[in-house]
Amino acid sequence: MKPNTNYLNLKDSYLFSTVARKVAEYKSKNPGADIIRLGIGDVTLPLPGVVVEAMGKAVLEMGDKKTFRGYGDEQGYVFLREAILGYYSRKNVSLELDEVFISDGAKSDLGNILDIFSVDNTVVIPDPVYPVYVDTNTMAGRSIVFLDANLDNGFLPLPDDSLQADIIYLCSPNNPTGAVYTKEMLQKWVDFALERNAVILFDAAYEAYVRDPSLPTSIYQIEGAKACAIEFCSLSKTAGFTGTRCGYTVVPKELVFDGVSLNKLWLRRQTTKFNGVPYIVQRGAEAVFTERGLQEVGECISYYLENAKIIREALESMGIEFTGGANSPYIWLKCPGGMSSWEFFDYLLEKANVVGTPGVGFGKNGEGHFRLTAFGDRENVLTAVGRLKSLI
Amino acid sequence: MKPNTNYLNLKDSYLFSTVARKVAEYKSKNPGADIIRLGIGDVTLPLPGVVVEAMGKAVLEMGDKKTFRGYGDEQGYVFLREAILGYYSRKNVSLELDEVFISDGAKSDLGNILDIFSVDNTVVIPDPVYPVYVDTNTMAGRSIVFLDANLDNGFLPLPDDSLQADIIYLCSPNNPTGAVYTKEMLQKWVDFALERNAVILFDAAYEAYVRDPSLPTSIYQIEGAKACAIEFCSLSKTAGFTGTRCGYTVVPKELVFDGVSLNKLWLRRQTTKFNGVPYIVQRGAEAVFTERGLQEVGECISYYLENAKIIREALESMGIEFTGGANSPYIWLKCPGGMSSWEFFDYLLEKANVVGTPGVGFGKNGEGHFRLTAFGDRENVLTAVGRLKSLI
Repeated sequence: MKPNTNYLNLKDSYLFSTVARKVAEYKSKNPGADIIRLGIGDVTLPLPGVVVEAMGKAVLEMGDKKTFRGYGDEQGYVFLREAILGYYSRKNVSLELDEVFISDGAKSDLGNILDIFSVDNTVVIPDPVYPVYVDTNTMAGRSIVFLDANLDNGFLPLPDDSLQADIIYLCSPNNPTGAVYTKEMLQKWVDFALERNAVILFDAAYEAYVRDPSLPTSIYQIEGAKACAIEFCSLSKTAGFTGTRCGYTVVPKELVFDGVSLNKLWLRRQTTKFNGVPYIVQRGAEAVFTERGLQEVGECISYYLENAKIIREALESMGIEFTGGANSPYIWLKCPGGMSSWEFFDYLLEKANVVGTPGVGFGKNGEGHFRLTAFGDRENVLTAVGRLKSLI
Repeated sequence: MKPNTNYLNLKDSYLFSTVARKVAEYKSKNPGADIIRLGIGDVTLPLPGVVVEAMGKAVLEMGDKKTFRGYGDEQGYVFLREAILGYYSRKNVSLELDEVFISDGAKSDLGNILDIFSVDNTVVIPDPVYPVYVDTNTMAGRSIVFLDANLDNGFLPLPDDSLQADIIYLCSPNNPTGAVYTKEMLQKWVDFALERNAVILFDAAYEAYVRDPSLPTSIYQIEGAKACAIEFCSLSKTAGFTGTRCGYTVVPKELVFDGVSLNKLWLRRQTTKFNGVPYIVQRGAEAVFTERGLQEVGECISYYLENAKIIREALESMGIEFTGGANSPYIWLKCPGGMSSWEFFDYLLEKANVVGTPGVGFGKNGEGHFRLTAFGDRENVLTAVGRLKSLI
């Protein structure tokens, strides 16, 4: 048996393991240090009460022969897909029930979607980037073109005539940069994709953090997008589902390439290689989209956005350049004093006992940048910001 | 963008849709008919109390900031993997913690495992077969060699010298035939795989139905298997998890092909394209492996095995040839009177109002055969068997 040798072309990611090692070393030398992590990508608030109640009820149903549920509906339970259609209608986006696929998270689907594309496609990925886009294409042996996201374009690159692209990754609000595309900018991407017969993979995992009503929260708010874009959504950062696992992917029926319906291919892929999300979890997800649910998750998001604002205002007062921090849980800053990403990491760790993520870990254009996140405790955020201010 | 045209080579499976259509047509013509389904592949008993209690507790933990869990451990929580190691030690199989990967079900992993193998491998699949093996390889464009399983070999084919194989699928107890390999037979497969440098994908989804202590319940009970076999297990039929979604896959560290560790490739695949099983579900799964859990799921399995025995004894009394029905929830019978699979389907539906699954739907060697399952209600099984006896 011959293994898939494309895996040997994967770069080992030492980013988070190096961060962990450096923090551990510092702690062993300075056991009394009060280290605050502003780099964590995981939520810290518990599940909203409405979700806990719905899942508790569902657990009891599963223990009773009269209400027990075995295999679920192919694309996810209708009750949940209908709730998602309702959520989209608030965005003025009209979808059909069989265009929505319930998933166990955006990450899984962003990787697995590649199954339905030929290996022989050119993939365009912005740099810096969420590493999963790169790794999943490398595993399949696809050629990748990187698109520079940098201070010049506000970390929101746009297409130009010279760009060759079959598959285009866009993430807005962006991880790691926190930058958010405007409708006008996304229209340029959609027009480009339609003209070039390319597909856009739109990662909307952070859409719930957009509070500015002029900014798009779905690619389908852009004219023509249903004929060129697949959208990936997640409840992980929206409703604290990182350990509960539920998301959804929209594959419009208008997506037809070489006469082949992507909706039908994805249905076949999912019914063959996936057996759906637990009934209990789907009931919890349904609760997120109720009036009470939207209010409760809205309060959690407001808490994280307030953390982001505290960090953002501190950076402004210090004259540090950054993107994100509004309409996004990520703050992406230019390391002060011309420091490299890792130099600033060491500096912050040693001088302020604050831990963040070196931007270079997300790609070459991340060098000289640094990512902070808003998912921590308020008290820690305030303490960390105080230390930063007194330091810089 | 070019779609993956291998998908166009997939055969549309009309098996279950045709079954559903024929039943619906019969019902519309005979509205009073009391139709009993002996073909269902889904469990009907609810989750055991021990699982319901564990999940109910976990739901509450998720609603409390002090006990909330975000992203879980990469391969699944240690508490669950340790419980699974304990389950294997009862089988006299010793595994290491990082050889076990928690999954959302055997079906997902049986499909996704193909990611780590080169497309350029010859795949050997028994016929008749669980269609997922065929479809997932067709999607990737691999060449498939079918291995005849038939009455002559008791639906348990063995390797011979002429067989070319890089990847070998084995399922025991088998779906759809209910046949179970002995240790001696599996030793032949393991020896063959070791000699040919092939990998065995061992689908053990029905291992919990084996009650005969002389029969193997894990490929790792066979000498040499850790150097050639990956094992896929599921709680779907073991503990009623078809709608709760949890399984586990064992990738021993001894599996090294062309100098590449399959354990490391699979870890990289899963950490890149999967984010784990919900914490709540993993707590439910852990409960299955406690003493109380094993007793409660054992009682459910005994119930289904008693159904199988009732069907088996009826077939014996009618002189109908079959495999399975002991150590397996499936009964695979030769259609009486030389009927084809679909002829017997129509005959049973019309004369006895009993629905099963035509064997030809599982491959060409299934023609003239028929699958019954033991997952129904006792009362329905008894009624159905009574009708069969009076009919044949």
